[in-house]
Amino acid sequence: METVLSFYAPIQDELRRVEENLKGVAHTGLESTDALLRHVVDVQGKRVRSALTLLTAKMLNCTDDGPILMGAAVELLHLATLIHDDTVDNADVRRGRATLSSMQGPEIAVLIGDFLFAASAVKVCDTQNIRVIRRFSETIMDLSSGQLTERIMVNDWQQTRERYLDRIYKKTGSLFATASESGAILSGADETTIQHMRSFGKNLGTAFQVVDDILDFEGTPAEIGKPVGSDLAFGILTLPALLLVERYPEDNPVVALCQGKDPEANVKRAVDMIHSTGIIADSYAVAEELRLQANASLEGMPESEQKHALLELSDFVLARHV
Amino acid sequence: METVLSFYAPIQDELRRVEENLKGVAHTGLESTDALLRHVVDVQGKRVRSALTLLTAKMLNCTDDGPILMGAAVELLHLATLIHDDTVDNADVRRGRATLSSMQGPEIAVLIGDFLFAASAVKVCDTQNIRVIRRFSETIMDLSSGQLTERIMVNDWQQTRERYLDRIYKKTGSLFATASESGAILSGADETTIQHMRSFGKNLGTAFQVVDDILDFEGTPAEIGKPVGSDLAFGILTLPALLLVERYPEDNPVVALCQGKDPEANVKRAVDMIHSTGIIADSYAVAEELRLQANASLEGMPESEQKHALLELSDFVLARHV
Repeated sequence: METVLSFYAPIQDELRRVEENLKGVAHTGLESTDALLRHVVDVQGKRVRSALTLLTAKMLNCTDDGPILMGAAVELLHLATLIHDDTVDNADVRRGRATLSSMQGPEIAVLIGDFLFAASAVKVCDTQNIRVIRRFSETIMDLSSGQLTERIMVNDWQQTRERYLDRIYKKTGSLFATASESGAILSGADETTIQHMRSFGKNLGTAFQVVDDILDFEGTPAEIGKPVGSDLAFGILTLPALLLVERYPEDNPVVALCQGKDPEANVKRAVDMIHSTGIIADSYAVAEELRLQANASLEGMPESEQKHALLELSDFVLARHV
Repeated sequence: METVLSFYAPIQDELRRVEENLKGVAHTGLESTDALLRHVVDVQGKRVRSALTLLTAKMLNCTDDGPILMGAAVELLHLATLIHDDTVDNADVRRGRATLSSMQGPEIAVLIGDFLFAASAVKVCDTQNIRVIRRFSETIMDLSSGQLTERIMVNDWQQTRERYLDRIYKKTGSLFATASESGAILSGADETTIQHMRSFGKNLGTAFQVVDDILDFEGTPAEIGKPVGSDLAFGILTLPALLLVERYPEDNPVVALCQGKDPEANVKRAVDMIHSTGIIADSYAVAEELRLQANASLEGMPESEQKHALLELSDFVLARHV
């Protein structure tokens, strides 16, 4: 677990202040609403996104509070999207806890998600930096259009790998990109540095989602907390499934599944084929390539404890094998 | 219908440009998403909220494009909340058209709502005015916390009239307040003028919601497009119901309903009592009082075609009897 935790070391104080900011959201003056909000913000997430903002800003010698506020905004936005995703997916459990939608019904979950979207937008306004504020709103558009596209492309086995990468960039990479880019903007960095940090977050976040999508096929149900191949069972085609379609155009279980033929048997057959044909390793190679592109963006950054931590964070993203 | 339309006369061009901005949202590059967005933004709403921004700004001699952008942002936000409300309420029809959630399912509706929230936030960033941007995000918090409170207070017959007024201010008045306030801010008005215009919108929007809540009891099902007393049937206690509880503490159908006793008969009994005891007229008096407070805020404003139109708009809000 050491590598998991080590990249937080240079930003312990800052992360604690981000947590305080998150807890502050649960003070609306209405106790019943606050109890719901506490249930959401008290969950200890990995805070990878705020770590990106904080490490970038500290590496670039930022000394004011902007990155703390931005870190909190980024985590609030992430929480809002998780709540809406769980609602949309009818998910019962997240991070080992009952989801808000399973406890309180989808109506309350939609509204608490909306409230957290707004709270994140207010938090980012506290940075007083209009470029960061605008980028943040654009990111909410990307996140929702990524999710929408995922829904709309359900059972579309002819979607290209490029379409898939664009969709997961929007769904996950965009917020990673904005997290690291805003760390640079708030530090007053030059435009080249800002673009390099954006590129770092973008590629790393996209790699993160590729790994997430692989884990859906790789683990046992006990390890991943849901049935193996559950994305595929919902008709969501991720990289391993698309590689399977590319390589075996004849008698393909993914195509059969998308055509509504014998879902249970075809999910099982697809999972077995993905394991036996080396597609898991090939999918990890795509993620690894993205990670290396991310790391390349850090080359010109000042040598520092924080740069080292960003590289560790990048290792961690790929090392999340079950 | 003449009074309904007359207040648009001084801002015909500006409203047309707001419409163009709204239609521009349906260009995401993904045709299936764009088709859904067009379905939403093509609905001809009353555009009362953007009219508030545009009339205020023109009255205060604003000459730049800020109010157009803000008007579009306000309408996009309003559309986003309508979509989430319809999803939360399982509503099938809105403004005579099938709702997005009934056509596409709640999952797509939640995500399209999120996309429009984000699009509204991006639009307000285009004003480049950080005070307006911040107020806008705070308003999204108010809107969602107003809706949340409505859900949480379901069947609570002991809620006070003050609590009700605070809740409907958040749910409806807050966006009216921000619409008119931002018209003043973007015109570079002095702080007193800004606060007067905020107050105008706040009171007018709250009056608007009181009238909406009365109409739920007043019309026939054909006129209001839903069963009479449907708020009450869902356990949502609005002004007429609260007045009934206040005045008839013994053997009250609203209290009985909230205790789960014979819902159908008690809704009918409550509707009959609200009609026969003068509570409809007393509720309109509360709305009228709010409207007069709104109008008082306009007293020091420059005499102009736009000020006259704002007063007409205020008349219109109260004149929406079925």
